[in-house]
Amino acid sequence: MQYSTFIPEQRTLMGPGPSDVSPRVLNALARSTLGHLDPSFIGLMDEIKALLQYAFKTQNALTMPVSAPGSAGMEACFANLVEPGDKVAVCVNGVFGKRMVENVVRCGGEAVVIEDDWGQQTDLDKVDAALSADPAIKILAFVHAETSTGVRNDAQALCQLAKKYKCLSLVDAVTSLGGIEVDVDGWGIDAIYSGSQKCLSCVPGLSPVSFSPKAVEVIQARTHPVQSWFLDMNLIVGYWGKGGKRAYHHTAPVNSLYALHESLLMLHEEGLENAWQRHADGHRQLAQGLSSLGLDMAVDEAFRLPQLNVVRIPDGVDDADVRGRLLNEFNLEIGAGLGEFAGNVWRIGLMGHACKARNIDHCVASLGKVIN
Amino acid sequence: MQYSTFIPEQRTLMGPGPSDVSPRVLNALARSTLGHLDPSFIGLMDEIKALLQYAFKTQNALTMPVSAPGSAGMEACFANLVEPGDKVAVCVNGVFGKRMVENVVRCGGEAVVIEDDWGQQTDLDKVDAALSADPAIKILAFVHAETSTGVRNDAQALCQLAKKYKCLSLVDAVTSLGGIEVDVDGWGIDAIYSGSQKCLSCVPGLSPVSFSPKAVEVIQARTHPVQSWFLDMNLIVGYWGKGGKRAYHHTAPVNSLYALHESLLMLHEEGLENAWQRHADGHRQLAQGLSSLGLDMAVDEAFRLPQLNVVRIPDGVDDADVRGRLLNEFNLEIGAGLGEFAGNVWRIGLMGHACKARNIDHCVASLGKVIN
Repeated sequence: MQYSTFIPEQRTLMGPGPSDVSPRVLNALARSTLGHLDPSFIGLMDEIKALLQYAFKTQNALTMPVSAPGSAGMEACFANLVEPGDKVAVCVNGVFGKRMVENVVRCGGEAVVIEDDWGQQTDLDKVDAALSADPAIKILAFVHAETSTGVRNDAQALCQLAKKYKCLSLVDAVTSLGGIEVDVDGWGIDAIYSGSQKCLSCVPGLSPVSFSPKAVEVIQARTHPVQSWFLDMNLIVGYWGKGGKRAYHHTAPVNSLYALHESLLMLHEEGLENAWQRHADGHRQLAQGLSSLGLDMAVDEAFRLPQLNVVRIPDGVDDADVRGRLLNEFNLEIGAGLGEFAGNVWRIGLMGHACKARNIDHCVASLGKVIN
Repeated sequence: MQYSTFIPEQRTLMGPGPSDVSPRVLNALARSTLGHLDPSFIGLMDEIKALLQYAFKTQNALTMPVSAPGSAGMEACFANLVEPGDKVAVCVNGVFGKRMVENVVRCGGEAVVIEDDWGQQTDLDKVDAALSADPAIKILAFVHAETSTGVRNDAQALCQLAKKYKCLSLVDAVTSLGGIEVDVDGWGIDAIYSGSQKCLSCVPGLSPVSFSPKAVEVIQARTHPVQSWFLDMNLIVGYWGKGGKRAYHHTAPVNSLYALHESLLMLHEEGLENAWQRHADGHRQLAQGLSSLGLDMAVDEAFRLPQLNVVRIPDGVDDADVRGRLLNEFNLEIGAGLGEFAGNVWRIGLMGHACKARNIDHCVASLGKVIN
C-alpha cells in the first residue's frame, strides 16, 4: 500500500458539527507542543478555566475541559454523579436523551424515562409528575439542544423542577453553548457538559464540563469509587484544580487545548450576547432562504434551535444524492437525519464561525441548484 | 481579566512525553477540518488503521486509535475485557502497573497483583507461579515499557506465559511503540494500547489500540455490557469497522487524526527497524554523555529502555532547581521522578522525533552547565 500526506478538501461545514474552524484556531492548534506540566502551560489552563466560566456563566470552581469528545463529557457527568442503584429521571426526545439513558444504566443506575415525540419539547407537566411520583429520584437529566431534532428544551424551567424536587440537574449543552443562552448559575445547573466542535468552533475532541459545589459534594461523598479512572473528577481535580502544584493524572491534549483557548478567546472578544444574536440572525436569514426554496422546517418556531435547522426533505427528493452533490459539487456539508429522522430531514448547522451571511447565501443557493 | 492569544515557548521536549512533534505533524494538525463522516475522511481512517497495523506488527482487524489519551486506551482494554468477578493478574513494578490494578478494580474485577521492585523487571518465575496457582485467572496484564522507572519488561516471555495458562495478554505499550520492538502477532498479544505523544511523536490526546480475534470474541460474548458507553468496542467498531458504511458513534477528533496519520506515515517512511535502531543509538550517545558528567543510570543495561533514561540525581543536587534552570535558561524539558522515584531520579526521554544527536548534545551540555 502507498501512503502519502493527507490534504483535506476545503469544505464549508454546515452539518450538525464539527463546524467550520477559524484559521485563528487552526493556527493556535499548530503551535509547538509544551509539556503538560510546563509552568507556562499551567497558566494557559487557568485562562481556559476562566474563559469556560465566562461561556457557561458560572463561578463553579470545577469547570474544565474533559480530554475527549462530548460523549466522554456526558459519561464524566453520569459516572461521577450516579452510584449503583441511584434513580435518574431522563427526558428523552431524541438520540442524545437516549444516550443519557444508556449512561445511567451502564453506571448501575435506574433510569426513569420521560418520553416525548421527536421534534417536540420535553413536556414540563410530565416531568413534574414523574419527579413528584418518586421522591427517590436523585438527578434530573436532559438535553438542552437536541442535535438530532433541532429542538430547544426549556432548560431554565427543567432546572426549576429539579430544584422543586431536590434533584440535581444534569444538562447536555453540547450544541447550545455559545449558540443560545446557557446560564449555569442563574438556572442552577449542577452538572453540564458541552463539546468543542459545535458553537465554540474549535476542533472536535474536547468536552467542557462544569459542576456546582453541590454536585462536587455529592461526588466527594460517594460510597462507590467512580467506575472510570480516566473520568474520575476526584482525581482530575488534582491536575485542573485552582493554583499551586498540579499533580499528573493523564497527559493533557496540549495542542487541542491551545485551540480551545483561542476559540474561547474569540467568543469572549465577540461577547456571549452578540454571539447568540448572530446565531439568531443567521437562523432568520436561513429560514427565509429555505422558505423561498419551498422547504419546510420540521420544528415549531417557538422552540427551534437557531444553530441547528432541521428541514423536511420534500417528497421525491433523494436525500443521499442531494447531500452527495452538495459535498462534491459545492464542497458544502449538511447533515443527514439521525435515528427516527433518518431519511426524512436534513440538518443544517449554523454553528459558531460557520454562522455567517456568506455561508448561508452559499448554502441556500447551492441547495436551490441541487433540488430544482 | 485580560486574555490574549497564547504563544508557547519553543521547548525541546526530552521528558517522559509529550515528545517533540515534527513540523510535518503540526502542519497536518492545522489543515481544514472535515466532517467525521465525510467520505474523504473515511479514506484517511482506513490508512490510519493500516499504518497502525504496520506499527503494531499485526493483522488484527480491530486496530484503531481511541479518541482520548493513553489512560483512556488503558481503560478501553480493561473495560472491554474484564467482567464483574473476573480475575486479572497484574504485574506491578511502577506507576502504570498500579494504574492497571485500579482499572481492574473499577471494572468489578479481582486483581491478582504480582509485585516487583521499582527499577527491576517483572520476575517471570513469580508470574508463572501466580498463573499456575489460580486457573481462574482470565487475563495477564503488564506494562511493556514502564515510563515511571525506565524498565523494559520481557513482553515476549510474559505473553508466552499467558498462552501457557490460557490467559489473554493485555499490554501497555504507551512508551514502547515506535521506540523498541513491539510484535503483536509474533508475541501473541491479545489487547494492547499505546499513546500518540511518545515515540510516535504526535500530539497528545490519542491512544492506538489493537485487539486479537480471540479478544474480540471475548468482548462479543460478554454477559454484562461494557460499563463505558464511550469506550465500548462493540459500538466503536461500527464507526471504525472495515469498509462500507460508517455509523456515527461519537465525533472523531478529526484534526488530531490528521496528525496521527502524518506521524505514522513518517514512521513508515523511516521503517520500524530503523526507528528502533535510531532510539538504541541515541541511548548509547546519551548514556556516554551522562557518564562523562559522572551521572549514573538507575536501570540495569540489560533491560533499560533506550527511549526513557532514568538517571540518579547526585547527592546535594536540587532536583527542582536543575529542572527549572534547564527549562528557563535552555528551553529544555526533562522529567521528574514519579511515585517512589520522585526526587531521586530524572527521566530523560529520547522519543520519536526528539531522539536525534543535536538534542542529545544539547541535553548533555546543558545538564553539565547546570549541575557543575
